Amino acid sequence: MKRLKKSKFAKLYKPLEQDLVAMARWVAKTGARVVVLFEGRDTAGKGGSIQAIAGPLNPRQCHVAALPRPTDAEKTQWYFQRYIAHLPSAGEIVLFDRSWYNRAGVEKVMDFATPEQVASFLKQVPAFEKLLIDDGILLFKYWLCSDQEKQEDRFKERLDDPLKRWKLSPIDTAARQKYSEYTAAREAMLAATHTKAAPWTLVDFNDQRRGRLSLIRNLLDRLPDMTVADEPFEFPPLGHEPLVEHYAALKPIAPYHDPDKAKDNKSDKPKGQPAA
Amino acid sequence: MKRLKKSKFAKLYKPLEQDLVAMARWVAKTGARVVVLFEGRDTAGKGGSIQAIAGPLNPRQCHVAALPRPTDAEKTQWYFQRYIAHLPSAGEIVLFDRSWYNRAGVEKVMDFATPEQVASFLKQVPAFEKLLIDDGILLFKYWLCSDQEKQEDRFKERLDDPLKRWKLSPIDTAARQKYSEYTAAREAMLAATHTKAAPWTLVDFNDQRRGRLSLIRNLLDRLPDMTVADEPFEFPPLGHEPLVEHYAALKPIAPYHDPDKAKDNKSDKPKGQPAA
Amino acid sequence: MKRLKKSKFAKLYKPLEQDLVAMARWVAKTGARVVVLFEGRDTAGKGGSIQAIAGPLNPRQCHVAALPRPTDAEKTQWYFQRYIAHLPSAGEIVLFDRSWYNRAGVEKVMDFATPEQVASFLKQVPAFEKLLIDDGILLFKYWLCSDQEKQEDRFKERLDDPLKRWKLSPIDTAARQKYSEYTAAREAMLAATHTKAAPWTLVDFNDQRRGRLSLIRNLLDRLPDMTVADEPFEFPPLGHEPLVEHYAALKPIAPYHDPDKAKDNKSDKPKGQPAA
Amino acid sequence: MKRLKKSKFAKLYKPLEQDLVAMARWVAKTGARVVVLFEGRDTAGKGGSIQAIAGPLNPRQCHVAALPRPTDAEKTQWYFQRYIAHLPSAGEIVLFDRSWYNRAGVEKVMDFATPEQVASFLKQVPAFEKLLIDDGILLFKYWLCSDQEKQEDRFKERLDDPLKRWKLSPIDTAARQKYSEYTAAREAMLAATHTKAAPWTLVDFNDQRRGRLSLIRNLLDRLPDMTVADEPFEFPPLGHEPLVEHYAALKPIAPYHDPDKAKDNKSDKPKGQPAA
Repeated sequence: MKRLKKSKFAKLYKPLEQDLVAMARWVAKTGARVVVLFEGRDTAGKGGSIQAIAGPLNPRQCHVAALPRPTDAEKTQWYFQRYIAHLPSAGEIVLFDRSWYNRAGVEKVMDFATPEQVASFLKQVPAFEKLLIDDGILLFKYWLCSDQEKQEDRFKERLDDPLKRWKLSPIDTAARQKYSEYTAAREAMLAATHTKAAPWTLVDFNDQRRGRLSLIRNLLDRLPDMTVADEPFEFPPLGHEPLVEHYAALKPIAPYHDPDKAKDNKSDKPKGQPAA
Repeated sequence: MKRLKKSKFAKLYKPLEQDLVAMARWVAKTGARVVVLFEGRDTAGKGGSIQAIAGPLNPRQCHVAALPRPTDAEKTQWYFQRYIAHLPSAGEIVLFDRSWYNRAGVEKVMDFATPEQVASFLKQVPAFEKLLIDDGILLFKYWLCSDQEKQEDRFKERLDDPLKRWKLSPIDTAARQKYSEYTAAREAMLAATHTKAAPWTLVDFNDQRRGRLSLIRNLLDRLPDMTVADEPFEFPPLGHEPLVEHYAALKPIAPYHDPDKAKDNKSDKPKGQPAA
Repeated sequence: MKRLKKSKFAKLYKPLEQDLVAMARWVAKTGARVVVLFEGRDTAGKGGSIQAIAGPLNPRQCHVAALPRPTDAEKTQWYFQRYIAHLPSAGEIVLFDRSWYNRAGVEKVMDFATPEQVASFLKQVPAFEKLLIDDGILLFKYWLCSDQEKQEDRFKERLDDPLKRWKLSPIDTAARQKYSEYTAAREAMLAATHTKAAPWTLVDFNDQRRGRLSLIRNLLDRLPDMTVADEPFEFPPLGHEPLVEHYAALKPIAPYHDPDKAKDNKSDKPKGQPAA
Repeated sequence: MKRLKKSKFAKLYKPLEQDLVAMARWVAKTGARVVVLFEGRDTAGKGGSIQAIAGPLNPRQCHVAALPRPTDAEKTQWYFQRYIAHLPSAGEIVLFDRSWYNRAGVEKVMDFATPEQVASFLKQVPAFEKLLIDDGILLFKYWLCSDQEKQEDRFKERLDDPLKRWKLSPIDTAARQKYSEYTAAREAMLAATHTKAAPWTLVDFNDQRRGRLSLIRNLLDRLPDMTVADEPFEFPPLGHEPLVEHYAALKPIAPYHDPDKAKDNKSDKPKGQPAA
């Protein structure tokens, strides 16, 4: 299958965007609680997928949980404790950029967790997730797949593109040599945690744009009928000429000019100006 | 000045994106702490500006603080307390989507706070912000301006565009009739809180694209020299043919197809499939 | 059995105090995590038992979790979420003054929770507690029993003694008429949550002093051998005469005098005094 | 002045206990917010004073804030941030067992903070505390004094008494040799932070019992008239014979017996027993 072009992606994404907004409205109205986990290969496209979902939504409703490294105290607590603090209230959607499954992935492969810790984690997960689901939380678990060839391409892109350089960490270099170990870790994880109550969904992200569409479509299709009419909204005429900003204490800074056109950039340098 | 076209914006935004990434790298390396407040007219473009800044950055470094309504207990606490909980640690950037200035804006105009509370707030702010600044926090305060004509256009757009409908709240309708009160509130706020230590910057968002560029350029220009070389990154050859994903427990769902092309959409409906 | 006298209690409590301190030292050294739940009849003596345990211990190690009423948002979250935030880190002891079992007790009897919520709670508890225990948390669940006669006596004492008046709430009055319902609720709770992994212990608190001793002794007996030698502590001679406080900026307030003796209490009123 | 005897202390403490309870009732009714800081010499008696205040009060209203060591991230935040999280809501009393003044005391003397950090802290404190006070928080700052002779006695007691051994830390040994430095640090602290808005109160704790009484009396005297009538409380007759506990699923454990009397302690070992 050929890689999806940017313009084609934009065209296909547009209706999904509408559906995502409808989904969020439904979540708000019904008080549903939605949790989506994003796991997968390094570089597979977790961040882009999360932005494609969260982008059109209200940031006060749709939260991205990207947890920092645990503190020393947190490391000794019940493993799930710091994740649980981010679970949704009624009407909220939480997208986990990596999740409790760290322990079965990077922590296992890179020996940040002991085999006992990993085994204990894999044993606890089904019971833990069942508690959430029985409580009514809608839980979706996505694992983003990518062949190593694509992964290598993307690593190189991150290396070369200053915009993406921050996505590279020393762990990534090490991870390159552990592609098979990650595969094995994923399979062990699936064997233990692909449960009826909380199944995994694998999505092919060799083409990231197509992957994003597949994932969003899948998510939307698995939610129930989400038709909720927009509430009618009173919007009477203003009743007077629209007003114009005027400034007393302080005026706006000069607007941004195309640097190509600006002959004398210095005199144009934006700064706060006292009102005349 | 004519409204900036989308393509032109994209072209002008690209170098700023690079500078933002460089800024974030500098923040990480030096342990700087950056706080940016976004205030302004309803519909002015706070959300879009925040996305334009946060978009290219690491979500683990650059946090968006969009606080929910305070709980009953929080309402009785020191007003700044719940905002303070979101202030940055070393190396972090926090973008406040609305901020403690709520009290001097919407809460004042809509009578959610008493005149005494507003007066007390305006008196506390300079001392509070000075504490942060003296502690070394880099604080930037932006107020996004917009004429009412544009505001009306955008309200109508939100009303008509299902994608933007969630941005409309009953408070917005009320706010339409209080454009002048908001102006007066802004000027009172500026009079009390446009301090030498923590000055305000007003940005004209009648053209949102241009406003975004002006704001980002201003922010970047006010930070010190942020040149930090990227650390060299070891990227040795892989040493073997790149590996290909293979699946045991579970296979990826079918990739997303263009619905226009898919004759039989049902048979194609994405779902997790057991591996053969 | 006759009620234990105060002096007798003090004598019997002393060795337990030593054992509690030894237990805490063991917890600190081994990194154990201890959770003790206190539930039971109103007025049974939860508070006094908690003080008897926490009193001799380091408040930085032994925390009392007495949660306030949930916020509106918390009410919609996974029921256990706000309790989980208080679970111990390594080396800590947490005493829950009432706990997640609220739902099966007061919330059930007073109709603050629906029968469905109670049923769901009782179903979730064993799985939830098993997760904690399998993770290595040492969990102890105590239910303090008291005949209604004693309860009535204590209610009256609370009514009459200004020192104890704050312990009375309108819910208590209602609870008086629901003694049997509480009994039934307790039995339903035991039937569902007295598990092999996390058994309940009922303690007779008709005599509160004896109850406290029984509870503490039981707790200590169920922990493993806790012998940990105190680390030797370097305590060299001071090498000079001990120094005496002297004051420059401010002197201490006048010491407290027996009001019986103080003829002229006014002149003696304690206040900060500038140093001579 | 002679050391106060235990029985005499108990007699003098009793009316203060009543006043503390009256104070707490007043705080609850008026929605006041009370913060009390406890600082002073090691061994001076902070813990005992806090217990003497918190003991008779509702733990849901009166919180003891004894913060653990800051995490690595917290160390880089605004110094006051983690303390601010513990400030009271309406109707609450917070007792700080050590406080933000750590920086001007132990951190300064033991070189855990740089001179710049200490200087910056001392400069920030008056402005910070004024914000709290202007917001209506009632702030009391106590520094507990003790001559070195008493301190040495108490260190030895902690060394010898297994019950108190946990109060000894290696820092204490070092602190013994720095009595004068602590004095100097206190005077610098007073010079910078004994403000009109938030004055310090020094209390002589050479006699700990008398010190406790002095401190509590001073605290009570500085609060306004706190007369609040107890609300009348409906307490109708029960209307039936009081009920007696009866057990189905599980019976209480055997009550605690005086070990002196128990010939055969083993057979008496408390444990949960299945109901007959």
